[in-house]
Amino acid sequence: MFREKIKVLDCTIRDGGLINNHDFDVHFVREVYKALSAAGVDYMEIGYKNSKKLFSNKEFGKWKFCDDEDIHQVIDGIPSKTKISVMVDVDRVDVDDIAPRKDSCVHMVRVACYVKDVDKAIHLANHFAAKGYETTINLMAISRALDNELTECLTQLEEESKANVIYIVDSNGALYQETTEFLVKKAKHILKSKEIGIHAHNNQQLAFGNTIEAIIHNANYIDATVYGLGRAAGNCPLELVLGFLKNPKFDIRPVLDLISKEFIPLRQQMEWGYIIPYAIAGILDEHPRAAMEFRKGDNKENYREFYESLVGEVDE
Amino acid sequence: MFREKIKVLDCTIRDGGLINNHDFDVHFVREVYKALSAAGVDYMEIGYKNSKKLFSNKEFGKWKFCDDEDIHQVIDGIPSKTKISVMVDVDRVDVDDIAPRKDSCVHMVRVACYVKDVDKAIHLANHFAAKGYETTINLMAISRALDNELTECLTQLEEESKANVIYIVDSNGALYQETTEFLVKKAKHILKSKEIGIHAHNNQQLAFGNTIEAIIHNANYIDATVYGLGRAAGNCPLELVLGFLKNPKFDIRPVLDLISKEFIPLRQQMEWGYIIPYAIAGILDEHPRAAMEFRKGDNKENYREFYESLVGEVDE
Repeated sequence: MFREKIKVLDCTIRDGGLINNHDFDVHFVREVYKALSAAGVDYMEIGYKNSKKLFSNKEFGKWKFCDDEDIHQVIDGIPSKTKISVMVDVDRVDVDDIAPRKDSCVHMVRVACYVKDVDKAIHLANHFAAKGYETTINLMAISRALDNELTECLTQLEEESKANVIYIVDSNGALYQETTEFLVKKAKHILKSKEIGIHAHNNQQLAFGNTIEAIIHNANYIDATVYGLGRAAGNCPLELVLGFLKNPKFDIRPVLDLISKEFIPLRQQMEWGYIIPYAIAGILDEHPRAAMEFRKGDNKENYREFYESLVGEVDE
Repeated sequence: MFREKIKVLDCTIRDGGLINNHDFDVHFVREVYKALSAAGVDYMEIGYKNSKKLFSNKEFGKWKFCDDEDIHQVIDGIPSKTKISVMVDVDRVDVDDIAPRKDSCVHMVRVACYVKDVDKAIHLANHFAAKGYETTINLMAISRALDNELTECLTQLEEESKANVIYIVDSNGALYQETTEFLVKKAKHILKSKEIGIHAHNNQQLAFGNTIEAIIHNANYIDATVYGLGRAAGNCPLELVLGFLKNPKFDIRPVLDLISKEFIPLRQQMEWGYIIPYAIAGILDEHPRAAMEFRKGDNKENYREFYESLVGEVDE
């Protein structure tokens, strides 16, 4: 009943870091790593590799930079088969920050880009592949991609990139199952030598549903986060993915413990999940940026006002 | 782009009433009716028609009985095209309580039953149809139905019942899209003279995804509740359904206002939604009864304990 090729990547700390400037303390991150390792999760993405020339480590926590010595504080002494992943953004990484794979505790580097930046992403991914890393390219905001540009982008990825996996990223939480099916099938058709991944946001409570849809159509790399933690509406909940997959290597129990002990208290301090302005942004296929700003204001429960602010300005 | 035959039925007060013994005050219910009317929602289900010989109106609120004079307090003076629905359970209704349609403000009577009770449900639905009501039969806990029994049940419904609509009810919140597709196609195939409805619970955050799946496969009666209010994990959120459907008669704005004003405060007092013991019950295809009990205890965030309690007792 299970598909052995399916890999689950937990990006709780990386995507959750977008809420708190990547400032999770080491104890918390270590608890996450411990639970994921016990649960049999294949990868844990711990943060970004951003250039310290561009971002100050006074303003941002350590998971915006992911120095190897910080990662060691998380993983050392914990028995684990879970591989470590870091993400890089086009134009925000200093490639010289990243040591060859053999000298690092990182296994995988994922390059996030918009369709228009695919050339830069290919260049980066090939650089990291040459250094010995597993690599992926994650196509953000794919719900906004024009079909002809996406075709060109996917063709180029197949022909020019050494990335092992190409991800469909629903940054806006705007995809419905039919579009997910369309995109995964299209990607599978063009990317004959690659695996397909899915990274879904949960604005419309469809992150898990779209992830299942992608799995049905042969996506094998599945992003999820513990209790759905992540920017704005958050992500596909890991515990639901583990409940769905029949692969005997997975054990949901350590993740349940982790939610009880760490995530229920955390939710009292950090906001993510099903919140109406994020749902509205998803319905209208907008980035949650405006909604996140709106949630900081005094008027944060005036949903009609937020809705009108997004649909109000219409011109040709 | 839109399918005119699609009807949206809001069952916020009826399903939400399972949390508070059907004791919503008239002001609240009137605000819901006002918003649904302005939003263009086709039906509002206001509660159950339970026999007062079986249940005391000291223990339960008025929406367990839905006397016509109580419904009038909600609807009078509000311009509306929204029809009123009530639900009856097999063996809990006194049919003499229900006046002929021409003497009542109720338009539709829905009969809820398990597959095994379909004979009783047909008898009831035909009785209400003869009194002039639109009728539906809602097949509860369908994720647990054996295929041969379901085939027999659906065949009987097609041949013997006067119900306009047969609903697939995912009481346990256990369905995934593939099973939803299978069930809706099966029902469509056998029930040639009926419409198909979907009523999904949200244990695994799949109520909306499964509802879309049912719509894709030609279910035309769509249950939803405001902000997902409903027993345990709640239901498919109405605001997401209205955001998805392209029917120009719907307006999401009054529902957004209603959530801002009434449902955000209510959520501080009543518990529903994505809560891990309900997710576990959904994953394991169990009724949420045990999870609801567990949430009342001191140990309510010990998810592993709850999980073990459900999977622990295994025998042949």
